[in-house]
Amino acid sequence: MKNIKVIAFDADDTLFINETYFAETEEKFCSLMSDYLSNQGIAKELFKIEIDNLKIYGYGIKGYILSMIEAAMKISNNTISVKAIERIIQYGKELTEKPIVLLDGVEETLQALHGKYKLVVATKGDLLDQRRKLHNSGLGKYFHHIEVMSDKQEIDYTDLIKRLEIEPSEFFMIGNSLKSDVLPVLAIGGHAVHIPFHTTWEHERIDHKVEHENFSSFEKITEVLGHFDH
Amino acid sequence: MKNIKVIAFDADDTLFINETYFAETEEKFCSLMSDYLSNQGIAKELFKIEIDNLKIYGYGIKGYILSMIEAAMKISNNTISVKAIERIIQYGKELTEKPIVLLDGVEETLQALHGKYKLVVATKGDLLDQRRKLHNSGLGKYFHHIEVMSDKQEIDYTDLIKRLEIEPSEFFMIGNSLKSDVLPVLAIGGHAVHIPFHTTWEHERIDHKVEHENFSSFEKITEVLGHFDH
Repeated sequence: MKNIKVIAFDADDTLFINETYFAETEEKFCSLMSDYLSNQGIAKELFKIEIDNLKIYGYGIKGYILSMIEAAMKISNNTISVKAIERIIQYGKELTEKPIVLLDGVEETLQALHGKYKLVVATKGDLLDQRRKLHNSGLGKYFHHIEVMSDKQEIDYTDLIKRLEIEPSEFFMIGNSLKSDVLPVLAIGGHAVHIPFHTTWEHERIDHKVEHENFSSFEKITEVLGHFDH
Repeated sequence: MKNIKVIAFDADDTLFINETYFAETEEKFCSLMSDYLSNQGIAKELFKIEIDNLKIYGYGIKGYILSMIEAAMKISNNTISVKAIERIIQYGKELTEKPIVLLDGVEETLQALHGKYKLVVATKGDLLDQRRKLHNSGLGKYFHHIEVMSDKQEIDYTDLIKRLEIEPSEFFMIGNSLKSDVLPVLAIGGHAVHIPFHTTWEHERIDHKVEHENFSSFEKITEVLGHFDH
């Protein structure tokens, strides 16, 4: 593909597994709170508090822990035990220690593109946690740098492109979220590829089909190589 | 000053007041816990937990809230009330809503340097919170972009300089912390200016004098203008 200067990769569930670990943690949280409400009711309360807190805390594990604590207080009508809150903090800390499991074809794709394009990671989440994951993944050597974004809306991509000192048409984004990695990038004139992951957080789901001349969807990340000289 | 391409400004207590708000919050936390321990004892426990958690959470308000909750559980031997934990979360959320008070001479300095050098903000803390503060400060227009760093050690500045695609000798840092804004920058071959703020978080204090040909210390940030064409 001509004129592309920067290829940006989402991290969580694009380079390595993430949502699976959050789903496991949510299951533990539901067990902990099972005296008070059904799993479905607990998940609903937690999700509501998470979304309310996004504008204050942003994305990532720390905000997730704080939202679980708030949800536990709300669901239990403040009768939750301090021990249970201690457990919630422990679940959160354990999330920061999960092994990094690369997704199929990721390393092969990065190897093929490395040195031909400026490769960056463009991800939401906690700064330190995202850096740790990239470091532990062993993929750091393929990337010029990591951009941890406070959100992935059009304005955030416009800022990113300005910072990279390129034009939107020179920017190519690869990720598992149509809402965060594809739609805003297409809207500002960039290119985007969607590689679905089997689990998508409710907040990232959209219910319509995407069609655009700058857009493709692939099953495997290696298929993206067809777009590029390598 | 010749050859400088990027001037980076620390944010908290360099551009605007920050430590003052954390100190106020700590006072409230000490009052809340005053049944259990002296203020000094509480502050000591909290500090210890904060430092232990830095490697997991990094810097910023979210980690601070989580550390206050942990400290409250520890200090009370898990007898703290859920209501008190709710208060702690509230104190933390209030921290994200504090007014932005610019420090003396900041806007004048930025105005004078803007357009002549690439100006960036280089700060630790929570991504969303730092962006919000910069936006609300009205200073955003002077900066090319904001770099929220997971830490400010030599390796972090080396990464930053690589990302900026400049040499260390072309990098000039201005900040209130000798430990975070000055020493690591000098160590990798950059330039640094120290503008002390009246309150310094214990973790940022060092007990020796800095002398280096690439280093100056000024009372007021406007004095830095003597270094530059403007």
